[in-house]
Amino acid sequence: MTTTNPTPLTLLGLGAMGTALAHTWLTAGHPLTIWNRSPHRAQALTTHGATAAPTPADAIAANQLIVVCLLDDASVEETLTGTDLTGKDIVNLTTSTPDQARTRATWAEQHGARYLDGGIMAVPPMIGNPDTGAYVLYSGNRPLYDTHWRTLAVPASTTYLGENPGHAALYDVALLSGMYGMIAGITHAYALLRADHIPTQDFAPLLTSWLTAMTFTAPKTAHQLDTGDYTKDVVSNLAMQAGADTLLRTAQDQGVSTELLAPFVDLMKRRVADGHGDEEFAGLVDLLRTT
Amino acid sequence: MTTTNPTPLTLLGLGAMGTALAHTWLTAGHPLTIWNRSPHRAQALTTHGATAAPTPADAIAANQLIVVCLLDDASVEETLTGTDLTGKDIVNLTTSTPDQARTRATWAEQHGARYLDGGIMAVPPMIGNPDTGAYVLYSGNRPLYDTHWRTLAVPASTTYLGENPGHAALYDVALLSGMYGMIAGITHAYALLRADHIPTQDFAPLLTSWLTAMTFTAPKTAHQLDTGDYTKDVVSNLAMQAGADTLLRTAQDQGVSTELLAPFVDLMKRRVADGHGDEEFAGLVDLLRTT
Ligand SMILES: NC(=O)c1ccc[n+]([C@@H]2O[C@H](COP(=O)([O-])OP(=O)(O)OC[C@H]3O[C@@H](n4cnc5c(N)ncnc54)[C@H](OP(=O)(O)O)[C@@H]3O)[C@@H](O)[C@H]2O)c1
Ligand SMILES: NC(=O)c1ccc[n+]([C@@H]2O[C@H](COP(=O)([O-])OP(=O)(O)OC[C@H]3O[C@@H](n4cnc5c(N)ncnc54)[C@H](OP(=O)(O)O)[C@@H]3O)[C@@H](O)[C@H]2O)c1
Repeated sequence: MTTTNPTPLTLLGLGAMGTALAHTWLTAGHPLTIWNRSPHRAQALTTHGATAAPTPADAIAANQLIVVCLLDDASVEETLTGTDLTGKDIVNLTTSTPDQARTRATWAEQHGARYLDGGIMAVPPMIGNPDTGAYVLYSGNRPLYDTHWRTLAVPASTTYLGENPGHAALYDVALLSGMYGMIAGITHAYALLRADHIPTQDFAPLLTSWLTAMTFTAPKTAHQLDTGDYTKDVVSNLAMQAGADTLLRTAQDQGVSTELLAPFVDLMKRRVADGHGDEEFAGLVDLLRTT
Repeated sequence: MTTTNPTPLTLLGLGAMGTALAHTWLTAGHPLTIWNRSPHRAQALTTHGATAAPTPADAIAANQLIVVCLLDDASVEETLTGTDLTGKDIVNLTTSTPDQARTRATWAEQHGARYLDGGIMAVPPMIGNPDTGAYVLYSGNRPLYDTHWRTLAVPASTTYLGENPGHAALYDVALLSGMYGMIAGITHAYALLRADHIPTQDFAPLLTSWLTAMTFTAPKTAHQLDTGDYTKDVVSNLAMQAGADTLLRTAQDQGVSTELLAPFVDLMKRRVADGHGDEEFAGLVDLLRTT
């Protein structure tokens, strides 16, 4: 039987997320070198067995695997500039745009490092709790991922999306976009009910199961988009979405601003006006393209 | 043992939805009198055992229970005006605003009828298929509901929301609002991916499970609203929603219009500017109130 010692690694950034990540690696027995701009946050973790480095350069020198979890891409640039990245494996979990991630990957390679980008689909309390469904999307250098995925899987399960280093960020932002849309809908719905003094908790179970049921729209629209057949399996076409006017009128009657949903209703009307009233939602995706 | 014969009823309106409803009552053995503005649609159903009436007045005279499923409130007004509604039980499944439903209820009562309003949470293929989770929200006259709920439960399960005849329409519109928000988010997400030529079907399973997981926002926000404690159990507060700027910037980089999500990001920023950066989403509901 071969036993492997837990891989040693360095973590730069001990905010809410970095601190949650650090605890899972320490608990799993990984030797962990840490650095944080404000030293007190690193200090607190040394009592749990972490080694605090005085500078980013020292922290990076200590290990091959370097995980970065800072505020934004600018803070990553500021922290890594001037350090020696030769031969390092950089895993950047800092939220960034796809373009930032691709630029950062090229920059890292030019400095002699391999680069993997990650998008964390979780909040800190979910880290280290597999039952919560927390996961991290990864894309970029495949050999790096193959070497280190077991270590990366300690805080949250991993999903590898391919070599394009921008795709983890793209999927991350796309998921957040879907979520913000859904929360916008929930916000509007609750405003309607509160205008009639209805407890939203009476309504929440119906809303939750309705939204869950309506997620079937995601695979259905995807199939229409990928096949190019936007009228396949249409049940309620855009021209029949008469409910949309009832929706706007109800908001006005209830004294609720339509600002969150009017743009979507407008988009549906534009698509119908363009002669596509026989479609459902797929064609709306094309209308959003500005280039 | 007491056996009850299926209640006879009248159905006005044989569009896609009315026709689906009619088939379920005929299959369950309910004597059914029907009327439709365009007679050919009624004619087709007589071969399945329905009795076609030549006018709305004749159809209404035939039974006590009258189900109405027409295009909109104006078509209901046009169809019922001049008929004798004395002693009738009117169940109106036509999509309407809460105010229209309340006005229609008062109008029906003034004409000697009992009135129940309904909002159908289903598309026609789901009608008569309990496995699909189809249901109809009802509100209005309670004795009418108690008398007829078994008949009403034939096409889809029933949920009674209380005496206020506007509440079925209000819940209906609120659920549709939530759904449109979610679909707006899905639309934006897919536009982002297609800019990189990523098949949306690769992404759809992740999006579906992510949205399903994020529906926990509905009960959580409801609890915050009903208790008035908008900072209870906050995990990622509004001030931390830095992801929102990444989201807008990514859309611009990918050549995707931000029109569907920018209003929600603006609302979050307004709430933070108002000094509520420590909240999650509950306070946004209040910002939507215009009165
Ligand atoms: N929290 C979440 O729910 C969540 C979820 C998914 C993804 N993320 C992402 O994870 C990353 C970290 O988030 P977090 O929640 O840990 O944020 P946070 O609690 O605000 O911590 C920010 C971290 O960045 C450091 N930092 C900021 N500016 C810096 C600079 N110019 N140079 C060096 N260090 C700098 C901070 O150091 P100081 O201690 O010195 O201020 C701190 O360690 C972000 O990209 C975030 O979008 C967070
Ligand atoms: N279909 C759905 O997915 C769905 C889901 C939930 C709720 N609903 C609601 O159910 C109701 C019916 O929908 P549907 O899908 O059956 O619509 P539809 O297929 O368009 O049928 C409309 C019906 O209304 C009749 N009508 C229209 N204007 C009229 C007028 N001025 N006087 C008399 N009759 C008139 C039509 O008669 P003709 O045959 O003579 O045109 C037809 O019977 C609507 O309120 C809709 O919002 C539908």
